[in-house]
Amino acid sequence: MSEISVVMGSKSDWPTVKKACGILDEFNADYDKQVISAHRMPNEMFAFAQKAVQNGTKVIIACAGGAAHLPGMIAANTPLPVIGIPGQTKALGGMDSLLSIVQMPAGIPVATTAIGDAGAKNAALLALQILGINNKEIQQTILDYRQRMHDQAVESGEQLD
Amino acid sequence: MSEISVVMGSKSDWPTVKKACGILDEFNADYDKQVISAHRMPNEMFAFAQKAVQNGTKVIIACAGGAAHLPGMIAANTPLPVIGIPGQTKALGGMDSLLSIVQMPAGIPVATTAIGDAGAKNAALLALQILGINNKEIQQTILDYRQRMHDQAVESGEQLD
Amino acid sequence: MSEISVVMGSKSDWPTVKKACGILDEFNADYDKQVISAHRMPNEMFAFAQKAVQNGTKVIIACAGGAAHLPGMIAANTPLPVIGIPGQTKALGGMDSLLSIVQMPAGIPVATTAIGDAGAKNAALLALQILGINNKEIQQTILDYRQRMHDQAVESGEQLD
Amino acid sequence: MSEISVVMGSKSDWPTVKKACGILDEFNADYDKQVISAHRMPNEMFAFAQKAVQNGTKVIIACAGGAAHLPGMIAANTPLPVIGIPGQTKALGGMDSLLSIVQMPAGIPVATTAIGDAGAKNAALLALQILGINNKEIQQTILDYRQRMHDQAVESGEQLD
Amino acid sequence: MSEISVVMGSKSDWPTVKKACGILDEFNADYDKQVISAHRMPNEMFAFAQKAVQNGTKVIIACAGGAAHLPGMIAANTPLPVIGIPGQTKALGGMDSLLSIVQMPAGIPVATTAIGDAGAKNAALLALQILGINNKEIQQTILDYRQRMHDQAVESGEQLD
Amino acid sequence: MSEISVVMGSKSDWPTVKKACGILDEFNADYDKQVISAHRMPNEMFAFAQKAVQNGTKVIIACAGGAAHLPGMIAANTPLPVIGIPGQTKALGGMDSLLSIVQMPAGIPVATTAIGDAGAKNAALLALQILGINNKEIQQTILDYRQRMHDQAVESGEQLD
Amino acid sequence: MSEISVVMGSKSDWPTVKKACGILDEFNADYDKQVISAHRMPNEMFAFAQKAVQNGTKVIIACAGGAAHLPGMIAANTPLPVIGIPGQTKALGGMDSLLSIVQMPAGIPVATTAIGDAGAKNAALLALQILGINNKEIQQTILDYRQRMHDQAVESGEQLD
Amino acid sequence: MSEISVVMGSKSDWPTVKKACGILDEFNADYDKQVISAHRMPNEMFAFAQKAVQNGTKVIIACAGGAAHLPGMIAANTPLPVIGIPGQTKALGGMDSLLSIVQMPAGIPVATTAIGDAGAKNAALLALQILGINNKEIQQTILDYRQRMHDQAVESGEQLD
Repeated sequence: MSEISVVMGSKSDWPTVKKACGILDEFNADYDKQVISAHRMPNEMFAFAQKAVQNGTKVIIACAGGAAHLPGMIAANTPLPVIGIPGQTKALGGMDSLLSIVQMPAGIPVATTAIGDAGAKNAALLALQILGINNKEIQQTILDYRQRMHDQAVESGEQLD
Repeated sequence: MSEISVVMGSKSDWPTVKKACGILDEFNADYDKQVISAHRMPNEMFAFAQKAVQNGTKVIIACAGGAAHLPGMIAANTPLPVIGIPGQTKALGGMDSLLSIVQMPAGIPVATTAIGDAGAKNAALLALQILGINNKEIQQTILDYRQRMHDQAVESGEQLD
Repeated sequence: MSEISVVMGSKSDWPTVKKACGILDEFNADYDKQVISAHRMPNEMFAFAQKAVQNGTKVIIACAGGAAHLPGMIAANTPLPVIGIPGQTKALGGMDSLLSIVQMPAGIPVATTAIGDAGAKNAALLALQILGINNKEIQQTILDYRQRMHDQAVESGEQLD
Repeated sequence: MSEISVVMGSKSDWPTVKKACGILDEFNADYDKQVISAHRMPNEMFAFAQKAVQNGTKVIIACAGGAAHLPGMIAANTPLPVIGIPGQTKALGGMDSLLSIVQMPAGIPVATTAIGDAGAKNAALLALQILGINNKEIQQTILDYRQRMHDQAVESGEQLD
Repeated sequence: MSEISVVMGSKSDWPTVKKACGILDEFNADYDKQVISAHRMPNEMFAFAQKAVQNGTKVIIACAGGAAHLPGMIAANTPLPVIGIPGQTKALGGMDSLLSIVQMPAGIPVATTAIGDAGAKNAALLALQILGINNKEIQQTILDYRQRMHDQAVESGEQLD
Repeated sequence: MSEISVVMGSKSDWPTVKKACGILDEFNADYDKQVISAHRMPNEMFAFAQKAVQNGTKVIIACAGGAAHLPGMIAANTPLPVIGIPGQTKALGGMDSLLSIVQMPAGIPVATTAIGDAGAKNAALLALQILGINNKEIQQTILDYRQRMHDQAVESGEQLD
Repeated sequence: MSEISVVMGSKSDWPTVKKACGILDEFNADYDKQVISAHRMPNEMFAFAQKAVQNGTKVIIACAGGAAHLPGMIAANTPLPVIGIPGQTKALGGMDSLLSIVQMPAGIPVATTAIGDAGAKNAALLALQILGINNKEIQQTILDYRQRMHDQAVESGEQLD
Repeated sequence: MSEISVVMGSKSDWPTVKKACGILDEFNADYDKQVISAHRMPNEMFAFAQKAVQNGTKVIIACAGGAAHLPGMIAANTPLPVIGIPGQTKALGGMDSLLSIVQMPAGIPVATTAIGDAGAKNAALLALQILGINNKEIQQTILDYRQRMHDQAVESGEQLD
């Protein structure tokens, strides 16, 4: 029912995904969030993806780590754009998550963002930028957000000891 | 003036980018293509990005290789969604391009696809999926395209020697 | 209906998978082979995996490249052992395939073999070794096969120029 | 004498291997565990592997880190399936362990699982799935285990703050 | 107005960049430092780079992490030598920063130093060595600095327990 | 006696280094070139580096591959700026050369450029940019060169088929 | 019976190992060569290693690729120094061979050389340098060989076009 | 004057090198240890290496991190066998040190051991194994040491909780 659906492969991804939700909250975005494990809840995953269009979802954000199949398998089951966040991992830093998400074969894209927290924030912003194409109000909030980032960056430079 | 703008950092990226344009042609998408080098044409790059909204562009696709700054620097100059294609490279296979594009800092996302040809095709499909959110006709052509891919995959299995 | 089911994500994996089938042929194993794309044929993939036990399949071999989700997603849908072959890839040599297959989260294992042709041969041998646990005849053919490899290795050493 | 033999290259692998044994305990599996160092106890390693069939062992699980030769060298000395767990390492995260275990030459497979704890759990589950091929009771416990994982995943999603 | 301009992409780079400034302080170098974010302050970045020559700057030092575009984009906008410091990163150790900075396409070089603190110190020393080409006094301070490093290294060897 | 000294670790580096010399020729730069192997001609290497200042050299360019010690060892023996070109290598693409050159310890910087041909061209350009700090004529030729690159990039975009 | 024993895991390593033998021939070294596969001839491997001392062998050179266990497993079975040559591999360039050989656990060293041909030549030279410790004649031939390399390097520099 | 010379590039390598010295102490080996920095003490390094033979040194152990030039540059200046220990590094784990040491060009080998502490211990053991070729007493102490390692490994297996 929400415009943006945020899913994560495991509750252990929540500290990362929270960063995406923080942005969505800040933008008063219409979103829902849930744990959908590609490997432990495969039927729910397919049902979720296959009903996303009729549920009125417009953009899906999916975070997973390691052999991160969630974003790509959702993408294979919906014509909606799917944004993938590679979770940081203990052994390989997240290189496994990144390659499992970004190296999709021709036909089924996943819009991949950076590993970890920065990628989570950017997934949310990317979803908003996508919705902003046809919604000048959202586009303006993106521009406002950037202006604030700009001002903070300028200001931070004045505080170097 | 086109809905989708396809840019590449160098004419040497054209063999890859051509794969994106092939998809866009197949979908009769409204797009333009151009060489804009982040490093050799920085002013044009900024002008391009900063005017993209008022030019009516909705999605930007940018391909670059090595220290691939083009997608991220365009993204920094427009609130439109920017899709980045990492070019394959001779020395490092494209790992350099991938990391230069995908590892964007929080605030400015680039929707990254796979390295090389598959990523180019997927960049085009992702752009169409994004436009398809508010255009059921485009969304249907995605579904039709996937049905054709599906049928070809099924058929190909019958031809294993 | 066969004891061993060999699946590949794309017909382009056939040159690799053929090496597995060559071993299975040599052992007169009971197997079938098919193209099942995780991303282009997701419903068939799930149906295949979810019916494998009742179809009498005992071991599944799955080959895929890049963001190689096929082995892991099949594994998530069957209690049978799934052997994954990482396809070699143009840009990253197969490191992407390897990590996408082997780095499965706790709960759903994929028995991963080497990248490319050696991995394909070994996937077939591993399937036979698994069936050989309860079938001394198959176990003996493994031992015979190893004896032949041994003898060829010994012999090859006599032919160094 | 046990159906599953769990070996580790060093006592320092025990914190990882313990995760495998935890699963085997939970399933009331028939297993034994021991330290067998490929490099410090090579004769014992060969004796262990060469007697495994006659000892009634059905599946071997071997964990090692760094230049991890244990799983492959055991595999070279028995026709039983050998499952390899790559230990996480301080310097390279376990990439060294992974490549030393998974990249076996054609002829002698090692069924490799993920680096570290997840791989240890999955090695145990894979062994059980292998035994479950001919033991519907074990197969059912796998299905029950997955159901519990499924339910916990669903439940965990309801607890996102 | 200073001979050496030190810029960083974010205030979070300051702990690293501080090491460069420490060297510049020790040499009584004429330098200024500021935060200029390639992605959050793109216009300021271009203005900074395009005015650097007329401002009397001789060498620019730029530090950034992840998809580190700052050094290369400054380099594209000034004929002055630009030294790039790859920031260490949490997920990938700084390999992403390194490749984003060093793998510049033909035409626009960035003089890249090591990842993190050592690279920051070396960026400062490299800037001084460059200025020392035409300033024997500076060159002599480099030689003096090296003599002190030499003596400390010799002395440290006498303190091994 | 030349302002720029170009050295390579082996004659096999010449196809790469030639690209640097091509740029220097185009700029009518005052340079010499020679093979100086760090490992086969260590004494000559030290003599070369230790006499560079008194010989009137201003910038040194050094290319080497694999365990590429030449640039760093020259840098340790002269206060002049040393530019390092990592040679592309057969086994590891040049990652070995890159890390051997760029990861210098604090105290002795090497100004590292990209792997292979692009890095060779950029080493030459960087040397010229360094000399251009105090030579407006050289700086102007850099600006002219960039203008030509710019124009060619623009023109190349008009030729996309 | 020879002072130096050269072994390779497969006849396919011969093109690499040949480079080692070429050096040994040039030095008129007392050596033998054979194929001993760690995985296909494990008993012969152990017998070879365990008898090496009494056979009068002084140094062992072992080449293998992929999950390269040969050098380390020989080392575990003899107190003689073992030199390992990592074979170049198709998928991963030889990084797998390198890590499998060099990352030996504390207690059993393998003296590892470079990947591929250079490593093979160096393995031979290293064996000779080891024998040269107590044999001034061999040590002198190493010095002579280096003088020739030196002279060729000097000469090659005069032939740059 | 000692048979084994242990050198390190910096006092910061001492915690690692100490592990080598611990082994040498345990074996009552005749060794000396010193800090010799390739980059800060280049002349001392060359003098050390060039006088090693006449000083009666038989084997050299050298440890360095990052762009680790010390082992290779010493090797280039002596016909004695040089053992290289790659130091673990903060940013890249020691992959930089490993490649800088092991990837030596044909002609000048460095006998490389594992990254960090295990490599340090093994460097000492390798040096002793080399000396043991012509000294049965040392060779026996190696065998005794291995017996103790063996026994401890066996014993440790009995203590798994």
